[in-house]
Amino acid sequence: MRAPYEQLRGRFARLTDLNGAAAMLHWDAAAVMPTGGAPARAEQLATLSLLAHELLCQNEVADLLHRAEAGMAELGPWERANLREMRRQWSHATALPGDLVAALSRAGSACEMVWRTARADDDFAALCPYLETVVDLVRETADAKAGAFGCSPYDALLSQYEPGLSAADIDREFDLLAAFLPDLLDRVLTQQADPPTAPERLGVAVQENLSRHLLGALGFDFEHGRLDVSLHPFTGGVADDVRLTTRYDEADALGSLYPALHEGGHGMYEQGLPPAWRSQPVGQAMGMAMHESQSLLIEMQVCRGDAFLRYLAPLLRERGGVSGPAWDARGLSRRVRHVARSLIRVEADEVTYPLHIIHRYRLERALLAGDLQVADLPTAWRMGMAELLGIAVPNDRDGCMQDIHWMDGAFGYFPTYTLGAMAAAQMYRQAEAALPDLADDIAQGAFGRLMGWLGRTVHSQGRLHASADELLRAATGRPLDGAIFRQHLEKRYLAG
Amino acid sequence: MRAPYEQLRGRFARLTDLNGAAAMLHWDAAAVMPTGGAPARAEQLATLSLLAHELLCQNEVADLLHRAEAGMAELGPWERANLREMRRQWSHATALPGDLVAALSRAGSACEMVWRTARADDDFAALCPYLETVVDLVRETADAKAGAFGCSPYDALLSQYEPGLSAADIDREFDLLAAFLPDLLDRVLTQQADPPTAPERLGVAVQENLSRHLLGALGFDFEHGRLDVSLHPFTGGVADDVRLTTRYDEADALGSLYPALHEGGHGMYEQGLPPAWRSQPVGQAMGMAMHESQSLLIEMQVCRGDAFLRYLAPLLRERGGVSGPAWDARGLSRRVRHVARSLIRVEADEVTYPLHIIHRYRLERALLAGDLQVADLPTAWRMGMAELLGIAVPNDRDGCMQDIHWMDGAFGYFPTYTLGAMAAAQMYRQAEAALPDLADDIAQGAFGRLMGWLGRTVHSQGRLHASADELLRAATGRPLDGAIFRQHLEKRYLAG
Repeated sequence: MRAPYEQLRGRFARLTDLNGAAAMLHWDAAAVMPTGGAPARAEQLATLSLLAHELLCQNEVADLLHRAEAGMAELGPWERANLREMRRQWSHATALPGDLVAALSRAGSACEMVWRTARADDDFAALCPYLETVVDLVRETADAKAGAFGCSPYDALLSQYEPGLSAADIDREFDLLAAFLPDLLDRVLTQQADPPTAPERLGVAVQENLSRHLLGALGFDFEHGRLDVSLHPFTGGVADDVRLTTRYDEADALGSLYPALHEGGHGMYEQGLPPAWRSQPVGQAMGMAMHESQSLLIEMQVCRGDAFLRYLAPLLRERGGVSGPAWDARGLSRRVRHVARSLIRVEADEVTYPLHIIHRYRLERALLAGDLQVADLPTAWRMGMAELLGIAVPNDRDGCMQDIHWMDGAFGYFPTYTLGAMAAAQMYRQAEAALPDLADDIAQGAFGRLMGWLGRTVHSQGRLHASADELLRAATGRPLDGAIFRQHLEKRYLAG
Repeated sequence: MRAPYEQLRGRFARLTDLNGAAAMLHWDAAAVMPTGGAPARAEQLATLSLLAHELLCQNEVADLLHRAEAGMAELGPWERANLREMRRQWSHATALPGDLVAALSRAGSACEMVWRTARADDDFAALCPYLETVVDLVRETADAKAGAFGCSPYDALLSQYEPGLSAADIDREFDLLAAFLPDLLDRVLTQQADPPTAPERLGVAVQENLSRHLLGALGFDFEHGRLDVSLHPFTGGVADDVRLTTRYDEADALGSLYPALHEGGHGMYEQGLPPAWRSQPVGQAMGMAMHESQSLLIEMQVCRGDAFLRYLAPLLRERGGVSGPAWDARGLSRRVRHVARSLIRVEADEVTYPLHIIHRYRLERALLAGDLQVADLPTAWRMGMAELLGIAVPNDRDGCMQDIHWMDGAFGYFPTYTLGAMAAAQMYRQAEAALPDLADDIAQGAFGRLMGWLGRTVHSQGRLHASADELLRAATGRPLDGAIFRQHLEKRYLAG
């Protein structure tokens, strides 16, 4: 009875190679590709996506899955989990006709390319028809999957990024956030001290050197990864070759360092995935919320904490050549924990970030339900930002065109950012309990114990667990508990 | 009867995408990939290669080809040529079992990776078992194709790179070369003046800037291409996104500039391929000898000629900040046309280069025939270099490990370099006849007329002609004529 499983294993290894090739080409498109390469690249990605789809949907796969599941008893726990993940991928793939998959891939590539210039030109009208096509195709995708899975269209999209997650879960968590965040934000804003201004500009080469040094110290392996530049920082590539990107602004060194640290958290998760299972579905990361929990655990819990700033301040003096009150541990803490009503999600602080997410969650649900037209997105964006964050949006570049996600067809993705932030707070509290004197380690730039714990508890687990919630229970002893995130915010931002 | 052709067209467009994706990943591996990414990359490339193979070999293709060929009369000339190229690709693919294709791809990736460090360490023993595997698999490939095509195994390998070319053709041309080159070399060496020494080191950034400026002036389109760094300069990517690489040595600016110009010649050929046919076999470049003719026409015929040096000298002064006799047109001409018995093929001059090629041609024929064992390659290399070039080889790094070709399984490729050099001389003579005052254009940095002529005559023709020889006849009015290459060498190197 092992034969069907082994055949599936071979087929999914091929699928991993196709997806890995596509991941590298996506990185290339964002980091190095000349603009004229876009149409040919879109065709390449569409073809890879279509071939992957066909590989999953060939008639014999259903039969092999059936027979392998019948012989489940002979398989070990990783193999059983692998089979479950194979079934999950198969269900998603067979819910869609191949031409829809290729059309969405092609439309996403085209929209992303137009977005690059439309965003720079603040020209939503140029983007609009491309985004409309993407939204139409995503809606078609959601409907097809909803029909196949017997769930709502939006839940069907969520399940692409986070198995087991439903809009009802998100509503519950986001309602709790919405109940205390506005009040917390008001209190923080009235009592926080202004951050000291930093007169020094830091050259790109110095910033890049600092980013590499810190990523290396944290444990990112440059033998299996790179750090480059792209418009929107992201982590791409494959587990054996992780491609981080960031962006540099000479006037705002911390504003490029922290995105690099954030992507480093993603990258170390990928690099820590179980080597023996990387060619298989069970060897992939456990959903996007868990992925974000690893980047935010590094960026927010560790790197914006007091202990890390005691390590960072002398490093910035020595390697960055900076000095003055803006760069000592106290000045840094005021800067990296400054809270503000702001326009840009990726530059938002920990307190306002969830409000940016709730805003996007509402809009994407309305877009997909047909309650909001793409052409009306700029107006709806302005209204939502005014209501949730109390801020006026001066243009679409810093408004509804700031994020790459929708351009590429990623609807149902945004909520995972905030669920990840909550999981990060919960996991870091558990790490503090498991690792005595953790803060002392961090203040000395010794991250080995923390990364070892995360490696054992999360990274090396791949998708052995059936859901992020199960993995979180295994790691922390309880399901997602939003109260821990709230306590974290109150302690950090109201302690003064 | 168009339906079968149209179905084939769709299938070959997919194949172009798969091959294009693989080309980008090859570039990535050589230019930017961290070493730890190699095993995963090898798997990705092997899978892409296997899927391409399967796409070509599926049963219905033979039937579609048959039916499309029966309806040939209804097709236009480009479509007929396209069908002929489809048949050619199909014949090559179906001659091989899929696991052999994947095994060779995997062995080539592994060997290439080991070669990178083995070469640096001058450690042939480390490379040997990997190269043995590659040679064994290439021999298996050659035998399988020889059986299918009814030709010799070596001719079968040649036909992968140059349709219609046989070892008998090569023997004839190479015998002619071998008959006059040694004598010519002796005469050149006794009468040439020493080149002036250039004391200035040129920074990498200045060299890169110069390379980009010159490539742009020649007509390379950076909206559809890049210039990066790799160990061995090459041209990769796809026609819409051409990836050139070179390497920089601060002590030898001309030694990095000329490889960039050479690759630029390849790149402009790719960029000039017919846009409407790029997704199809007929839209690809016409074999490797024709490809090399375009790079050598730029590098050797144009850029080492007097007119170009009159344009280059002031540019080097202004943009490179250099001065003195080593950098004026006369000094440059002595440097870029200096002839020497040397170890490294890619650094060899026009006169000795064919001897390097004849050396490799003999060795690869012996390796494939089983007359030479891989383990004995270092010794055979030393003997051949002593005999043909009169030079002692001090180590394997600068001996049999200098080139990437064999590592990657490319046997039967080397002869095309010298056939390309001969075609370049012939084609440039034709351009001079067709374009009055061409030298004046070049001296002023105006390359538009020359590139327009090459574009019309060669680049835009794709594979419309059945062989390089046919294309050469159409472009110059006669078949390959080695006498023109000889006259070029004698005029340039014995004129003084």
